[in-house]
Amino acid sequence: MKTDSIANLDIDATRVEGMILALGAIGAHSGTGVCRTAYSPEWVAAQDLVAEWARAAELDVRFDAAGNLWARSEGSAGGKPIVSGSHIDSQCPGGRYDGALGVLAALIAISALKAEFGAPKVPLEMVSLCEEEGSRFPSAGFWGSRAIVGKITAEDCITVVSASGETIGAAMADIGYEPAHISEAVRDDIRAFIELHIEQGPILEDADLPVAVVDAITHIRHTRVTLTGQSNHAGAFPMDIRCDPMAGFAEVVTAVINHADALGRPAVTTVGQCIPDPNAPAIIPRAVTFTIDARHPDPDAAAEMYRTHDSILAEVAARRGLTLETEIQIDHPACLSDPALLAALDRGAEAAGAPTMHMASGAGHDSQQMAQICPVAMVFVRSEGGRSHTPEEFSTVDDIVAGIRVLAGALYDLAY
Amino acid sequence: MKTDSIANLDIDATRVEGMILALGAIGAHSGTGVCRTAYSPEWVAAQDLVAEWARAAELDVRFDAAGNLWARSEGSAGGKPIVSGSHIDSQCPGGRYDGALGVLAALIAISALKAEFGAPKVPLEMVSLCEEEGSRFPSAGFWGSRAIVGKITAEDCITVVSASGETIGAAMADIGYEPAHISEAVRDDIRAFIELHIEQGPILEDADLPVAVVDAITHIRHTRVTLTGQSNHAGAFPMDIRCDPMAGFAEVVTAVINHADALGRPAVTTVGQCIPDPNAPAIIPRAVTFTIDARHPDPDAAAEMYRTHDSILAEVAARRGLTLETEIQIDHPACLSDPALLAALDRGAEAAGAPTMHMASGAGHDSQQMAQICPVAMVFVRSEGGRSHTPEEFSTVDDIVAGIRVLAGALYDLAY
Repeated sequence: MKTDSIANLDIDATRVEGMILALGAIGAHSGTGVCRTAYSPEWVAAQDLVAEWARAAELDVRFDAAGNLWARSEGSAGGKPIVSGSHIDSQCPGGRYDGALGVLAALIAISALKAEFGAPKVPLEMVSLCEEEGSRFPSAGFWGSRAIVGKITAEDCITVVSASGETIGAAMADIGYEPAHISEAVRDDIRAFIELHIEQGPILEDADLPVAVVDAITHIRHTRVTLTGQSNHAGAFPMDIRCDPMAGFAEVVTAVINHADALGRPAVTTVGQCIPDPNAPAIIPRAVTFTIDARHPDPDAAAEMYRTHDSILAEVAARRGLTLETEIQIDHPACLSDPALLAALDRGAEAAGAPTMHMASGAGHDSQQMAQICPVAMVFVRSEGGRSHTPEEFSTVDDIVAGIRVLAGALYDLAY
Repeated sequence: MKTDSIANLDIDATRVEGMILALGAIGAHSGTGVCRTAYSPEWVAAQDLVAEWARAAELDVRFDAAGNLWARSEGSAGGKPIVSGSHIDSQCPGGRYDGALGVLAALIAISALKAEFGAPKVPLEMVSLCEEEGSRFPSAGFWGSRAIVGKITAEDCITVVSASGETIGAAMADIGYEPAHISEAVRDDIRAFIELHIEQGPILEDADLPVAVVDAITHIRHTRVTLTGQSNHAGAFPMDIRCDPMAGFAEVVTAVINHADALGRPAVTTVGQCIPDPNAPAIIPRAVTFTIDARHPDPDAAAEMYRTHDSILAEVAARRGLTLETEIQIDHPACLSDPALLAALDRGAEAAGAPTMHMASGAGHDSQQMAQICPVAMVFVRSEGGRSHTPEEFSTVDDIVAGIRVLAGALYDLAY
């Protein structure tokens, strides 16, 4: 690798900032936020702006049957392309960076490499994916990447609906996409996928580093639990003959949180939802329904964590005479990054002179879907305060440029 | 006391059961339940039926300015009357026994005493109170008894509204009561008040006894608590830098429930309401709001319990870096029964040959209001399964007759 050249690659911070602001102006919300849901007029305008920038950089631009935008820097040696990108839809409102930054980073890195070094050997492609968030169609998370890996059918276009009941197929048809053709978005020719994204957490800030190389996306499991006891009058029923599911719930929460505390990073366990029935001050609830969100990127550690949770639930329910029902609602196994891509990113970071660390992603990403058809890896850029899914989400342009340099260094390493 | 006579007082179980069923037919709901809210047509019909029975027993009947029904057995020595009764309104749906049984018991006891022994020395009165439950006008609990003790103003008739926005004054006016005159319901001439009620808990069933003499109504305190931390992504935020109010909430629940368990009967503590904000599986909540309902009939023990709760809340909040807000929403100090009335009830039970125990009431009752103007005491009748506020509420006619005999024995002891 010509490390000197890569270290001096022309990434103009002022231009990067201008592109972030120009994209953030489309669907602007709450000052610094955006509301840009899949297939909306704002989403169409954002895709068109990125396409315009890509054409100006002399990349080959096309939209696939799902509405994903691709921009290609043809490779002299041909063959399967290396792809980088992320999603351009947002939470509503979300921030300017979640998703959009990965699209811009891929465009800027591929364009700069082409401008500096000419055509790559291996083709490079940028992709701008649609409906990662599920903010318009709640069950359609990772829609664009799932279409690429062949997990979306024409039937899904009819059954997936928005909160107001509109089908995703109708929303596609409104802007000129034919739902019946969505399977044409499938690709089986991708060599590798590298996604840059904001961290959405505080680990880099805590470590005082601008960029991380992501070595895994964590296993995410949501278990919905109902503990059922006996509802009674809060005053007239003595403690010693109660069957109070709230008491059992509290013990479970403390035990699962203490377990994650004891395991230490990167284990996390959250009880974010609690629904007592009834939910009234002077009535012992009949039942308490809650979710346990538990994550670990190491497959063995995750399995051990889930076994421990099952034991805690069974022990508390049996000791308190409560009926226990559990349902696993979400179960995404860990997605491990490809060692060769990690090595390329480490070399890219070294060449770019960017100090980095390795970490796991605690959130899900399009990369998990892409991993079904190719090796993947990710780059994280520091998030101020670890904030995301809010207009307050922010990353400094210096950190962003550092992230783009790491990505560009890896693409150079792999494709030139 | 002519114990032989009292033991043989003519309380006809078949007639008692017939009266319960006749009253329960007015506003009948869900088979065995009733829905008889204050000032409704069903409530008017129920009061009228009781008035008809009272007139048939040659008692002097009148309705006061709040709609409470009084029936008097004049005393030969004159002076202040001893009053017995309860409320005739119900939850919606509630059962046939909560409240109504105390009205019928007073009517049956006073009538039977008059029939057997003639006029008492001390006047005896039955009262059928309105809107104890607050089931039509949520903020109007104990409306009838509060009117009697002078705690209701004409202004309240305008400000107290139902869920649909109707004022309680308009409901009164609809059936011929003039809200501006409500203060005429005040009484300052009551010698004592004795209320018979179903237990609403399982203590008598547990003790295998039909009747209890109630020596206190418990102190009831509802504290609304909000623990505020920091909302963050369930995956991206490491455990060691979280500020999770759900973790604090769970520790508080376990500590306050364990404290009541350790104190033993009659201490009870319930956390029946929990409202996380937000309330979503994959978000660490910003705040958790909940109520602590804690009750003890001994004033010193109650005060110690509330101090312990305050310490638990302060310790958990400080250790976890959570902001603590508390608001005492309900605070009814314990209402201790009058020793002379308790002694009369004990003698009445002995004379009636009814095995009884002493216990505290864990629920609030009209007696607490009446205690502001006179000595009070209560009698509890065993509730099957401890159930109340449901159509399934049930007491056997044998237990009910035993309760009426205890009440009649005490009234005989005090008034003849």
